[in-house]
Amino acid sequence: MSSRVVVIGGDAAGMTVASGVRRRLGDDDEVVVLERGTWTSYSACGIPYWVAGEVESPDDLVARTPDDHRKNGIDVRLDTEVTAIDTAARTVSVRGGDPVSYDRLVIATGAAPVRPDLQGIEGDGIHGVQSLDDGQAVLDELARGPRHVVVVGSGYIGLEMAEACVARGFDTTVLERAPQVMPIIEAELGASVAEAMKGRGIHLRTGTDVTGFALDEAGHVTAVETSDGSYPADTVILGLGVTARSSLADAAGLPLGAKGGIVVDDRQRVEGFDGIWAAGDCVVTRDRLTDELIHIPLGTHANKQGLVAADSIVADLLGEEPRLSFPGVVQTAITKFCSLEISRTGLGEKQARDAGFDPVVVSKETSNWAGYMPGAGTMTVLMVADRRSRRLLGAQIVGAEDAALRIDVASTALAAGMTVDDVVMLDLAYAPPFSSVWSPIQVAARAAVKALAG
Amino acid sequence: MSSRVVVIGGDAAGMTVASGVRRRLGDDDEVVVLERGTWTSYSACGIPYWVAGEVESPDDLVARTPDDHRKNGIDVRLDTEVTAIDTAARTVSVRGGDPVSYDRLVIATGAAPVRPDLQGIEGDGIHGVQSLDDGQAVLDELARGPRHVVVVGSGYIGLEMAEACVARGFDTTVLERAPQVMPIIEAELGASVAEAMKGRGIHLRTGTDVTGFALDEAGHVTAVETSDGSYPADTVILGLGVTARSSLADAAGLPLGAKGGIVVDDRQRVEGFDGIWAAGDCVVTRDRLTDELIHIPLGTHANKQGLVAADSIVADLLGEEPRLSFPGVVQTAITKFCSLEISRTGLGEKQARDAGFDPVVVSKETSNWAGYMPGAGTMTVLMVADRRSRRLLGAQIVGAEDAALRIDVASTALAAGMTVDDVVMLDLAYAPPFSSVWSPIQVAARAAVKALAG
Repeated sequence: MSSRVVVIGGDAAGMTVASGVRRRLGDDDEVVVLERGTWTSYSACGIPYWVAGEVESPDDLVARTPDDHRKNGIDVRLDTEVTAIDTAARTVSVRGGDPVSYDRLVIATGAAPVRPDLQGIEGDGIHGVQSLDDGQAVLDELARGPRHVVVVGSGYIGLEMAEACVARGFDTTVLERAPQVMPIIEAELGASVAEAMKGRGIHLRTGTDVTGFALDEAGHVTAVETSDGSYPADTVILGLGVTARSSLADAAGLPLGAKGGIVVDDRQRVEGFDGIWAAGDCVVTRDRLTDELIHIPLGTHANKQGLVAADSIVADLLGEEPRLSFPGVVQTAITKFCSLEISRTGLGEKQARDAGFDPVVVSKETSNWAGYMPGAGTMTVLMVADRRSRRLLGAQIVGAEDAALRIDVASTALAAGMTVDDVVMLDLAYAPPFSSVWSPIQVAARAAVKALAG
Repeated sequence: MSSRVVVIGGDAAGMTVASGVRRRLGDDDEVVVLERGTWTSYSACGIPYWVAGEVESPDDLVARTPDDHRKNGIDVRLDTEVTAIDTAARTVSVRGGDPVSYDRLVIATGAAPVRPDLQGIEGDGIHGVQSLDDGQAVLDELARGPRHVVVVGSGYIGLEMAEACVARGFDTTVLERAPQVMPIIEAELGASVAEAMKGRGIHLRTGTDVTGFALDEAGHVTAVETSDGSYPADTVILGLGVTARSSLADAAGLPLGAKGGIVVDDRQRVEGFDGIWAAGDCVVTRDRLTDELIHIPLGTHANKQGLVAADSIVADLLGEEPRLSFPGVVQTAITKFCSLEISRTGLGEKQARDAGFDPVVVSKETSNWAGYMPGAGTMTVLMVADRRSRRLLGAQIVGAEDAALRIDVASTALAAGMTVDDVVMLDLAYAPPFSSVWSPIQVAARAAVKALAG
């Protein structure tokens, strides 16, 4: 008996599921992707580099076009907006078209930038950055030559967009509600990032709440109003994070968690809803350290979850045992601001305390290469460990060339449940152009061991 | 009751033990280091960069001078060669001096470059590279402006010294007995290294056995004789690896293993010899994957073993439980040749087969950053996995900027005993300037999973 797998959403998660299912099913089986926009399989993370001019064209950010997918036998339908899911009838309603029936449904609707409900938020010139269309809108806006760009929020996207705007020569202000930039890293490291931003000529205002937007008669933004006064702005970029696009799922009664993320099991199945899977930026996922369900919208998770969902769907259709499961995340993230590299993984001090751990926090400045090599720079590694179990709980890095990617030693050690003692004894790569004899993560782990003893 | 800890050898392992013990013992206790040379705590790994001119002075390679250590209360005695150990009397004999008695003894005598027993090997101008004195000798030799430098062996030191000699403008030939350069990596990756060497103007001859050295009347080398003919040479650099300096230990009846390395337990104690520890390049260590005792002389292991030995000695003296143990190694190594980065960890295919695994080997070319970022390069990741257990057994990388350090994800995963499935699901850092959405190690792990299924 032939079957039809319907996927809502044609970016990383959706197309990974579609491709994975397509490869394993027979010619009579259909794989249909319903995408409300015009792009598939694109890198939203690349948008700041496109805006900065480092990447020339949005086409560079597209890993596979709709036609590429069609050649692989996937029925990709663009400009097709799903308006409702009927889980009993196993159909989805489509704006301006006939309902589409499914045997298995995948929800991969992604996430949308947070637009706070403030006066003037509907004005022209106020942009979130999530889709390629958003990226184009920002570029069109910047092409008009604004005098003042204000970026609201200093998380990853805020930071990357601020760098892009400064690189293009615009007067750029970053407003952050928290008392520090990048609240996802500890204040001590945030201070280094703030210094780098100021050094690049960015006007940085922390501890500043946005209260509204002033618009001109044509409805275009002219200023950002804050707790700290008014900041003139021709262009505003919202870097306030994203929430799951889960209104369809919500209306269908599916379970939702943090930031509206759909709750799924480790096979990406929606529990209690036979035949429905969800993956990518629209779901919540388990933190491997706390077991909490959190919303971490990142392409790398979307791709893995897509693989897992495809495996599960194929197993379900063919009556096999699924082979894959998604183990959750450890909140690894990385970025850079100009030449300053920034990364984190695991829990920060407050997160660790909130989760019931007894955290010890240490930070060490160390050399990125052997200190005697020409051009060697420095980096700061902060580490969080649990006093009771001696387990590594998290690490954060800010520093020079080759600094940030070292976070992956900690990411891997966290997944393995290693203690800081284990980390000290890891056999990590050493040669003078790459490292001191103690690798930076181990320098911090030794400090953690010392702090645990003291 | 006061005690005396005597350490033979003042480089990484010896001085780490001495410093660690010194910190924990009382003022009446003595810590004596007997060093036959004039340097302490130096980086032998930095010698090629000193020879290349990237590092100015040997002083830059010295982490702590004898006086630094003396200020910390360590009795460092230079130019003091130990000639025998009397384990019954607990004394060591010193050339031209009185015997030194000990309560606890640490052997940290290091390693010596292999000098094959070939005709002419005693000639002038034929240099191993292990101590700072060796480095100075090579520099003095090169200052005389040789016309032809021949490097024998294409391991790490051979490669790094060849790069240094070419950088200084000398005509440089590398001779390698094996059919490929760098036999420690698989042939496929070795071919990329060979190409880079040739591109830099190095004359490379693989499959070539050195049979002897021609000397002039003054006893200086003039040519290297090989299975493949004679190569003119004013300066010869031996890059044939090192063996443990363990003749003292051997004469005292201590157990020796591979390449003469002293056999120790995971506290660095010499079993059956109460009160004797050994650490660093003079010992063998356990491979965490095969349980075999192997000789892996590297500063990073010497430092860790020094910590462990110090902890064990202090515990022994104070009647406490030791806290540290050395878990062994996974054979991680890293280097670069010009801009080509090279790293490895774990087992190669043959090593895996010899150890009784059923290896699957895959290799994938991938992008070092997101492929659309300007300046993105490529890298090849080779991965070895066990067919039965699905365990990761090893990984090797050759590639562009930021390629080699990624090996540490595999080093950490090996220590944790992860399967390739586990590696695919790791939460590794992703942002376009650093990585594709699948991190390079995961690209290879996915290929390994596919190969295991096929």
